[in-house]
Amino acid sequence: MSDPSRFAVRGSAEEVEEGRKLAPKFDADGLITCVATDAATGDVLMVAHMNGEALARTIETGEAWYFSRSRQKLWRKGETSGHTQRVTELRVDCDQDSVWIKVEQAGEGACHTGRRSCFYRAVPLGRPADAVSLEWRDGEKLFDPKAVYGAPKK
Amino acid sequence: MSDPSRFAVRGSAEEVEEGRKLAPKFDADGLITCVATDAATGDVLMVAHMNGEALARTIETGEAWYFSRSRQKLWRKGETSGHTQRVTELRVDCDQDSVWIKVEQAGEGACHTGRRSCFYRAVPLGRPADAVSLEWRDGEKLFDPKAVYGAPKK
Repeated sequence: MSDPSRFAVRGSAEEVEEGRKLAPKFDADGLITCVATDAATGDVLMVAHMNGEALARTIETGEAWYFSRSRQKLWRKGETSGHTQRVTELRVDCDQDSVWIKVEQAGEGACHTGRRSCFYRAVPLGRPADAVSLEWRDGEKLFDPKAVYGAPKK
Repeated sequence: MSDPSRFAVRGSAEEVEEGRKLAPKFDADGLITCVATDAATGDVLMVAHMNGEALARTIETGEAWYFSRSRQKLWRKGETSGHTQRVTELRVDCDQDSVWIKVEQAGEGACHTGRRSCFYRAVPLGRPADAVSLEWRDGEKLFDPKAVYGAPKK
């Protein structure tokens, strides 16, 4: 599914970390983790995955493309919902196994549950981990996922 | 290594997405992806992984703990460098397979290469993916990794 041959061959740690070549490290499933933040607010909107094709298309088009693990298919963000993401910057991390995109989120939100961000619940800190009760943060549903997607899915 | 039994059993998608129970989804290696952003600037500092123990310790102590895949060990951020991370907020995403922590980064930076953030290079957009030349962003080395860590490592 992925075509890592479109990118540079990974060299030494020094080359990967200090060089100008894009040599992403895809995992055993051919995927790389992608964090999308809101270009305006800095909030993390979602964490998803890209295969080589999704990464290449994102770079070439400036629109966010991902690879859906649940559906096992290439996925242009917003192709169903219309909630596309225009990428204003794409960065790669030191060892090139993660990418960070800053996006202008079109439509009401990035999350398939109807929220602006997928991260709409916080874990209170300083208490036993087995007694956590999640707290809502910006959890308002801005669109009806059933109306946008049909049956619930990611 | 991980002890997922400290967290709630994962129920239906509705329960996982709309409920108050923390029921993280660890991958086949017992890990969950964690994005750490700078609480002050919103910049993504690093993407790393937590096992159940690292997640529990982060929740209970308010300090960032990770699991190092390369070293296969639990890792308190800053235990070698002194560049610890105090967590101001911890959020979980819709399907609870990623966490986002906002941190106050102690010391010069989060990246083992000596930078503030691991994401110190940008990929120019709108050009063929196989002809990318990375561009530096905030890539100044703020500390000498050899002096802090000894031999280069992650």
